[in-house]
Amino acid sequence: MKILWLFAHPDHRSLNGALKTEGLRTLEAHGHQHQLSDLYAMKWNPLVDAADYDHDPTDRLLVGEAAERAHATGHLSPDIASEQQKLAWADTLVLQFPLWWYGMPAILKGWFDRVFVKGFAFGHTDPATGRPQRYGEGPLAGKRALVVVTAGARAATLGPRGVNGDLNDLLFPLQHGTLWYTGIAVVPPLLIPSADRTTPDAYATAATCLRHRLLTLPTTDPLPFRHQNTGDYDDNLLLHPHLTPTPPTGPAAHYTTTPPPNSP
Amino acid sequence: MKILWLFAHPDHRSLNGALKTEGLRTLEAHGHQHQLSDLYAMKWNPLVDAADYDHDPTDRLLVGEAAERAHATGHLSPDIASEQQKLAWADTLVLQFPLWWYGMPAILKGWFDRVFVKGFAFGHTDPATGRPQRYGEGPLAGKRALVVVTAGARAATLGPRGVNGDLNDLLFPLQHGTLWYTGIAVVPPLLIPSADRTTPDAYATAATCLRHRLLTLPTTDPLPFRHQNTGDYDDNLLLHPHLTPTPPTGPAAHYTTTPPPNSP
Repeated sequence: MKILWLFAHPDHRSLNGALKTEGLRTLEAHGHQHQLSDLYAMKWNPLVDAADYDHDPTDRLLVGEAAERAHATGHLSPDIASEQQKLAWADTLVLQFPLWWYGMPAILKGWFDRVFVKGFAFGHTDPATGRPQRYGEGPLAGKRALVVVTAGARAATLGPRGVNGDLNDLLFPLQHGTLWYTGIAVVPPLLIPSADRTTPDAYATAATCLRHRLLTLPTTDPLPFRHQNTGDYDDNLLLHPHLTPTPPTGPAAHYTTTPPPNSP
Repeated sequence: MKILWLFAHPDHRSLNGALKTEGLRTLEAHGHQHQLSDLYAMKWNPLVDAADYDHDPTDRLLVGEAAERAHATGHLSPDIASEQQKLAWADTLVLQFPLWWYGMPAILKGWFDRVFVKGFAFGHTDPATGRPQRYGEGPLAGKRALVVVTAGARAATLGPRGVNGDLNDLLFPLQHGTLWYTGIAVVPPLLIPSADRTTPDAYATAATCLRHRLLTLPTTDPLPFRHQNTGDYDDNLLLHPHLTPTPPTGPAAHYTTTPPPNSP
């Protein structure tokens, strides 16, 4: 594997830091190559701004357009271009972070906000059908990703009936809306629970799990997300009505009644 | 109302900027008070770090503990304390942002990462039962929140059968895992779709919707999230098995088969 490892914790002496060291050591011992983006250590700037795109600040900033144009003309900020080169080199992405407010730390969210630019990560069209290549297809198809996340909560409270919601549902905007959107296949996340109370035994278990998940990453079945363009969604990109899931879990379980439909 | 308005867009000349101006003008015209946190204009720092907590950088940083201690002893970074004071003053929170990668821009995620500190936003215990006060109870109970979000996608693709997932599911980490977690009641989000193709007519419609949603905010039914401590969840904080939702929608609909359970 050629792995890009994204690490988003402010302290190397943390549980996350120890697991990152263990993970990278394991990969090296098995002959895999890696590049590390240690976002805090790099002082990564997570804020999308006009300066990213060599954009005249007196002109109104249309973020998507400006980003696409800067990418096409080679005017993206060098720190963004550098991360895109790492990802282009990699066949595998590992994202490691503590779950803060049921999502990524801001520094990692801002990596996607800035690096996943139209033209680089999405925006291609199937020449035969004219349909945009998204959700299972796209410029980054063929790569794989693994999310490694620590959480203070107990594992069951991040399961299908847990008060916090199921981890895959919490990570849906990342695993489905970001990674799968660009074509990247996502294997099930590795959850290290009860992270504020890690005993030496619990650490040993977590390290063993991490080593196992890393070494089996190329052969692990990805999450079975539907493809946009193979018939499950109609021409308006709506799921065909007969494709309803069982069992009924996920965020809907945490409402007492069905919330109203979204409408302006 | 006393409203804290959080705004997270880098350009005032944007659709978001115009709607913010329109919203604040409407509130003023109806005698409501507001404070504005325009995060880009404030150059808000979204990165949790040891410096937030007056923490000795030679000691290992345990983020949750360090934040709780700094809050309790008055050593939180002044920019965090200032935002907490605004929120303590407010009875209503409006969060306005463009949906980037199906979530908040990093600058806004980092507002929650830094401001929602244990002791301020959570961490209280019911003296009668010993249960932690979360999800419907907590230090911020009694307040209300409205999410106002622009998105490039068409509205239906952010609905129950849309390829991107339902907006309430995408916002679940924010609306349930962050706001409701601390006791804040959340009214249904206002979605401004097709935001990259806004015509004057579409803008007028969006502005009308925004004015209506703001002025009815105190009387709008909140999203019917379950309370943690009123019987729906057992002592392990798991939903009782008979409480299954209908209809079966949400992230689960976008898998071809049920993904494997989370396990290390």
